[in-house]
Amino acid sequence: MTVAPRRPPLAVSDLDEAADAVRAAGGRLTTARRAVLEALLAAGRPVSAEQIADGLAGRAPLVSVYRNLDWLEELGLVRHIHVGHGAGLYRLAAEAEFEYLVCERCGAMSAVDARALDRARAEIFKAAGYEARFDHFPVHGLCAGCAGLSAAP
Amino acid sequence: MTVAPRRPPLAVSDLDEAADAVRAAGGRLTTARRAVLEALLAAGRPVSAEQIADGLAGRAPLVSVYRNLDWLEELGLVRHIHVGHGAGLYRLAAEAEFEYLVCERCGAMSAVDARALDRARAEIFKAAGYEARFDHFPVHGLCAGCAGLSAAP
Repeated sequence: MTVAPRRPPLAVSDLDEAADAVRAAGGRLTTARRAVLEALLAAGRPVSAEQIADGLAGRAPLVSVYRNLDWLEELGLVRHIHVGHGAGLYRLAAEAEFEYLVCERCGAMSAVDARALDRARAEIFKAAGYEARFDHFPVHGLCAGCAGLSAAP
Repeated sequence: MTVAPRRPPLAVSDLDEAADAVRAAGGRLTTARRAVLEALLAAGRPVSAEQIADGLAGRAPLVSVYRNLDWLEELGLVRHIHVGHGAGLYRLAAEAEFEYLVCERCGAMSAVDARALDRARAEIFKAAGYEARFDHFPVHGLCAGCAGLSAAP
């Protein structure tokens, strides 16, 4: 498996900035594209294409939601992550990149600033020679509650 | 997303032991089941259901390979892992559990004894309160070569 390098993130905080970024890339702010961006801005957390399409009540069919998410991701406005066995989840790109952790038992998901995992990253590199990134394929395991452990302070 | 807890691993080293485990569970060593076990024993690394079916040259169709992999996994003889965007990969369960690392650029995959990642696991728990496991959803990132870094000793 190989994947294309990700575009640098284009972080936007509202629809106007998103629309500017779309037009600066030579794209049009179509009805579907605008609806997808509004849904991502409103969600404030990673959501599936199905959840977005459901919320649009027919304004954009699922296939169009997927196509627009792909286009927006290509532009750098959107990121997707892979959580468990399910479909990818989408969110707006952020200046400070987040990394994710997922509980395989209860489904809890946490986002942390990527720097918070730098020490873990260093240990993984020492142990196995890989530069780990958890922004696309999150850490999976058990949350503190499901593991029966005391949580981090 | 929630997943059922995994069965304890049933590690076998040859077809006879695997056959004994199947029969001890009240199952039959059907032609397809035997072919799938032989393919996993021969592969010695995680392989996709498609690769197994291709190697069986019609002895078991893909749907039967999937069904038998699921059954064998339910029994504890088989484990699957999720690598990148592709289909799950299957392997025989082992006494000492392995964890996996995957390069998102070149597709390299490494298996390490789970204990090798215990320090990284401790750092992840300190930083985010999750007990990480990389036996089902591997660490993704860049191998040392693709990251342009010197590999671990």
